[in-house]
Amino acid sequence: MKNYIIEENKLPKNEGHHETLFSLGNGFIGFRGSFYEKTSKTQGCFNNSFYEEHEIKYGEKLYGFPDVTESMINIPDPRNITFAIEGELVEFENEYLSEYNKKLNLKKGILETSYIYSKNNKKVKVKATALVSFNNKNLSFIKYDITPINFDGEVEIISFLNNESFALDAKDDPRVATITTKTFEVVNKILDKDIYGYTFKTFKTKKELTVLEEMNILSGDFITSEICEKEKFTQKIQFNGKRNDTISVLKINEIYLDKLKEEYLEEERTFDYQLKKQEEFLNDFWENSLIEIKNDEELTQGIRFNLFHLLQSVNSEGTFGIAAKGLTGEGYEGHNFWDTEIFIFPFFLFTKPEIAKNLLKYRYSTIEEGKRRAKELGYDKGVKFPWRTISGIECSGYYPAGTAQYHINADIAYAVDMYYKVTDDKEFMEEYGLEILNETARFFLEVGYFNEDDEFRIDGVTGPDEYTAIVNNNYYTNKMVKRNFLAAYNYNKEFNTDISKDEKKQFKKAYKNMYLPFNNKLKVTPQDDTFLEKERWDFENTEKENYPLLLHYHPMKIYKHQVCKQADVCLADFLVGEDVSEKIKRNNYDYYIDITTHDSSLSYNTYSVIACEINYLEEAYELYTKNVRLDIDNSHDNSNHGIHTAAMGGSWIGLVYGFGGMRINEKGLFFNPKTTDKLGEYSFIIKYKESKLKVTVNKKSVIYEMIDGKEIVFYDRAKKIKLDGKAKTKIIK
Amino acid sequence: MKNYIIEENKLPKNEGHHETLFSLGNGFIGFRGSFYEKTSKTQGCFNNSFYEEHEIKYGEKLYGFPDVTESMINIPDPRNITFAIEGELVEFENEYLSEYNKKLNLKKGILETSYIYSKNNKKVKVKATALVSFNNKNLSFIKYDITPINFDGEVEIISFLNNESFALDAKDDPRVATITTKTFEVVNKILDKDIYGYTFKTFKTKKELTVLEEMNILSGDFITSEICEKEKFTQKIQFNGKRNDTISVLKINEIYLDKLKEEYLEEERTFDYQLKKQEEFLNDFWENSLIEIKNDEELTQGIRFNLFHLLQSVNSEGTFGIAAKGLTGEGYEGHNFWDTEIFIFPFFLFTKPEIAKNLLKYRYSTIEEGKRRAKELGYDKGVKFPWRTISGIECSGYYPAGTAQYHINADIAYAVDMYYKVTDDKEFMEEYGLEILNETARFFLEVGYFNEDDEFRIDGVTGPDEYTAIVNNNYYTNKMVKRNFLAAYNYNKEFNTDISKDEKKQFKKAYKNMYLPFNNKLKVTPQDDTFLEKERWDFENTEKENYPLLLHYHPMKIYKHQVCKQADVCLADFLVGEDVSEKIKRNNYDYYIDITTHDSSLSYNTYSVIACEINYLEEAYELYTKNVRLDIDNSHDNSNHGIHTAAMGGSWIGLVYGFGGMRINEKGLFFNPKTTDKLGEYSFIIKYKESKLKVTVNKKSVIYEMIDGKEIVFYDRAKKIKLDGKAKTKIIK
Repeated sequence: MKNYIIEENKLPKNEGHHETLFSLGNGFIGFRGSFYEKTSKTQGCFNNSFYEEHEIKYGEKLYGFPDVTESMINIPDPRNITFAIEGELVEFENEYLSEYNKKLNLKKGILETSYIYSKNNKKVKVKATALVSFNNKNLSFIKYDITPINFDGEVEIISFLNNESFALDAKDDPRVATITTKTFEVVNKILDKDIYGYTFKTFKTKKELTVLEEMNILSGDFITSEICEKEKFTQKIQFNGKRNDTISVLKINEIYLDKLKEEYLEEERTFDYQLKKQEEFLNDFWENSLIEIKNDEELTQGIRFNLFHLLQSVNSEGTFGIAAKGLTGEGYEGHNFWDTEIFIFPFFLFTKPEIAKNLLKYRYSTIEEGKRRAKELGYDKGVKFPWRTISGIECSGYYPAGTAQYHINADIAYAVDMYYKVTDDKEFMEEYGLEILNETARFFLEVGYFNEDDEFRIDGVTGPDEYTAIVNNNYYTNKMVKRNFLAAYNYNKEFNTDISKDEKKQFKKAYKNMYLPFNNKLKVTPQDDTFLEKERWDFENTEKENYPLLLHYHPMKIYKHQVCKQADVCLADFLVGEDVSEKIKRNNYDYYIDITTHDSSLSYNTYSVIACEINYLEEAYELYTKNVRLDIDNSHDNSNHGIHTAAMGGSWIGLVYGFGGMRINEKGLFFNPKTTDKLGEYSFIIKYKESKLKVTVNKKSVIYEMIDGKEIVFYDRAKKIKLDGKAKTKIIK
Repeated sequence: MKNYIIEENKLPKNEGHHETLFSLGNGFIGFRGSFYEKTSKTQGCFNNSFYEEHEIKYGEKLYGFPDVTESMINIPDPRNITFAIEGELVEFENEYLSEYNKKLNLKKGILETSYIYSKNNKKVKVKATALVSFNNKNLSFIKYDITPINFDGEVEIISFLNNESFALDAKDDPRVATITTKTFEVVNKILDKDIYGYTFKTFKTKKELTVLEEMNILSGDFITSEICEKEKFTQKIQFNGKRNDTISVLKINEIYLDKLKEEYLEEERTFDYQLKKQEEFLNDFWENSLIEIKNDEELTQGIRFNLFHLLQSVNSEGTFGIAAKGLTGEGYEGHNFWDTEIFIFPFFLFTKPEIAKNLLKYRYSTIEEGKRRAKELGYDKGVKFPWRTISGIECSGYYPAGTAQYHINADIAYAVDMYYKVTDDKEFMEEYGLEILNETARFFLEVGYFNEDDEFRIDGVTGPDEYTAIVNNNYYTNKMVKRNFLAAYNYNKEFNTDISKDEKKQFKKAYKNMYLPFNNKLKVTPQDDTFLEKERWDFENTEKENYPLLLHYHPMKIYKHQVCKQADVCLADFLVGEDVSEKIKRNNYDYYIDITTHDSSLSYNTYSVIACEINYLEEAYELYTKNVRLDIDNSHDNSNHGIHTAAMGGSWIGLVYGFGGMRINEKGLFFNPKTTDKLGEYSFIIKYKESKLKVTVNKKSVIYEMIDGKEIVFYDRAKKIKLDGKAKTKIIK
């Protein structure tokens, strides 16, 4: 049970980090875990469809540079509650607080805070329980309890509903946008009996969001209640406080987007009902996505924390992917990147495939904008998905580490291919998948070209590693595009589509003739045509405080060196490396790990997966654990901007694909499970086609256990295994 | 004489172009040639030291991106004059105007405008003569004459002194900055007897500029004069107009920068004195920079027009280089680029070396800022001169086609080397030149590196051709840097400086081991390591209106193709091509001319010089003439933004270096003169060391004539020639 609890017993020093960790959300709305009793500079409340457009300014604006970007708005936080004792307002300062405890319960889906407040010899115990409903997306609750410990006297509970908010000021950090203009206005004030609220409307995107509040009194000797709206709605509720008698109120917030209020049943608005339903929902979630490291509670806790946050970050309607920071912060403006398809998608694909499908449907919903953008980039055919976006428009203000990452097209195509291989969902392919595969492949036919030797080259793009930009034949890109062409070719055949013969031929030819750089002398795969000729970064003389390099060096200096922000060749070796020998993978790993700074949170995980594959197991474990606890430990020192959803997805990949050695290829599902002394026994559950499989790995054996569903066929290394019923098989290693 | 006149007999359709052509200036102040009688949207008045700073905004700001740019300010134009006939203000519209004539006299340095104005049966002849003094930089004049032709009656002359101005609105054209904020305010109003004026002060740079005005009555039956200041200073002077009696006034403007008014002698403030002095000044100028194409007045006129504009663009105090648009427009914000050293410097070096020296002194004055900038770019040693600047700070808002053009350092070093070779100015070298050579060389030692084979490579830079960016081993850059190292090494030896032995050794080693790409299969010099592998631009399917490409295609699409904005390899073949065979130069020319769009005004000229060298003389002539009349004919369709000073300098280079075949190398001065049927006989004059030499070339012979000075030694091809006294030698070709 402890593995489902994230706990804190001291008031946090790094409030921004604290707020990120204890964020609560349901994919529709997300609240940073700030204290209810005081306003913090970094508090936040987000909905990914409530965003504003902003003009992008450039020193020199060239053709095709995006005009506007989109920014997820920090919604006025509706969760402030505070109290007064005999007319004196609480001062939420360390000196008056004791026995502080904060607990995020991943199993129940609640956040509990408690402390003793003591001033002027008056002591109260405060306990707050917050819940953001997974079952009724518009509803969130705070049950707020105050118990006088050593006095009788008036206790007043004061609740605010804010109508103003401020964007995070991140100065020159390019990873956060600083929005200084007003993004929305109040267009409606609501006061309907006990329910009050605001409707906010953005200026340019014309998005509307309504926030309502109601305070229910659950217990206590109630005197009077008053709602007033001066600068903002404030409700004051007075009680006769009595020693050891708990005063309890329930704050209900309803948040609606672009539509009228839904009617919820009275029952749904009670806290007990919500507690029960929330736990049921999470029981189901954990049953389908169990991860357990038998002898390592900390690691298990870290992974579960990550999976819980992923769940909190994804909406259930296919209207958005997953923002780089989920709904926990303004880092990266709330944008969706390739992180979704490559790092997060696999977890949902194998545990909640309906969400994986929604993620792809969101991409599909932006395909027309992507076609327009392809034309703007100078290509008549195909789609170019944006590097970063909310609505589907390209929001990248620096193309060398943005738009130029054409690989995002192939990444999305890769996810479509994987989705079909795991789900057999023909309907999806016909309605969405095939068009994505064809349009991405078409775009690459335009971008690349067949040279004199009939090799298909792709020049002038940026790969995953953003410490090298605008290069020719980035290996990752070419390899992924090769797969993109293959998938387009194969599925057009399989689904007998009516695209032209000539186009099919072109897909095949580009697939077959894709140029892939290789250095015969070093027996290493070059990241691109000229990468290996460049000077090696002078790591020896780079001070620790100069990392991440991007915040301390001009990109020109970084780009001209052999230095990687994250895995690039090794990511290709992982995702599409079936035809690469273990020896080359080892050479690549050895070569690149030495020049990788891991300045990106996407890095450790990929290297860890490859390290497993090449049997560098101890090293794999080190890398893996760094990745898992990145946000909990704030190891990148920017968790205050929000969680790192891709790293979180990576923590699932690292275990299942890394140590579990799981792969999907043309033949089907493969495992090659490994473990180390430190990692010990672990297990995970996946859904595959119509079955649910539990895999338990220790030093001596692997147990494959079919939990549910129909017959399942898979491979343990070369061995084909078939399970049906509630069968189990044990492989002795 | 006609060759010194630029004339217009019809009212211009393209007013912006017209204003550029008829700009008047003296290197301190420049006025666009707008009509005095009406306010135009594109009128302008400039001083390159009166500029404001502006924040540069970025979509994503990365480390080392400049915070601010500088913009030359459009000073409130003080030249408006208009008139009223019997109380009715002139309407400067086509229907009332006839016999219009405008003449820029390059020999006298004046601009004459005349026309007949006729409305309501009242006809007047108007004649205005403007002069911006080369002798007294603060003074400019307009003599304004009105003669009633068919009536007697009141004539009022009205003069304004503006105190507001607007920046040119160029929308999305990255070649012009659009400044929308106020850049200065009026901090002082002056009214001292008949002299009135304003002091303007910028907000951030705190630059002050004072504009004064005085109206002198030269002839006419004067009634009354009144000066008032409501929205701006206005002086109204009334006359009893009489048929055929000329009313004449002299408008004197004094413009001062950052200091109190100088006292000019009464004589200096008379128009006759100024006319005389101006002509004397220009006689001297033309004597030293004579260019004549015997049988082509148009071409001669074009070249002289260009040289006159260069003279008008350069200040005589070494406080600035030459802006890309001189003092004739806001294009490129009034910034100074490499254009100065590579395209304009040679003309002054060989005709007015004191100006060439001032240009280098200006660069030297920015060396400390350049050292700071080098550190910001990540290099501990050396200087990095800015790609574009006014005060010396880097103002480039898009580094791939800006800061990344590291070659500017080598270009400046090249000019220093040339300056010394032509002038023997030891004092300059000791005070300025050596430091420039050493600091630029130091910077390149940091930027480049010796690879495993001990080759010196320079990765991640942009060459002159901005249609390819951030590449490895740009040939032009490497070749120019090689020269930079050689010069640093040689001059340190010659001047016996005290830089360390180790550093000298490093300079020598880098010089000797400089890596220069060459393609053995094609026998062509690649523009950079990967240029020749890229796809050729699809010129066949590029519509005419899609040029210049930079305004119609995303840079990523441009960069990934073989397409050049301008000469790159061929510029290296021209400037530092002594060791390149004619055959390779021809191969390079053939290869690159086919893929060059000449979207840069710097392009034709270089190709023309090389075409001369490889004996493509007819082609050279075509290219040359396109370059010479670029602004007169507005062939780039942006002369409304201002003149193209580099192309103007190129028109001198094209004749002297191109057809004249002049080169300076280690041995001295060389000529290899050529001509074509179309070009015919031409002559030019240069200063070299302490002598003045006239060269006259026709199909049959070359005449070298020493005009002045001491003995001069030079080469005609392999033949060494020594001239002294007023000797002449004739070489029969």
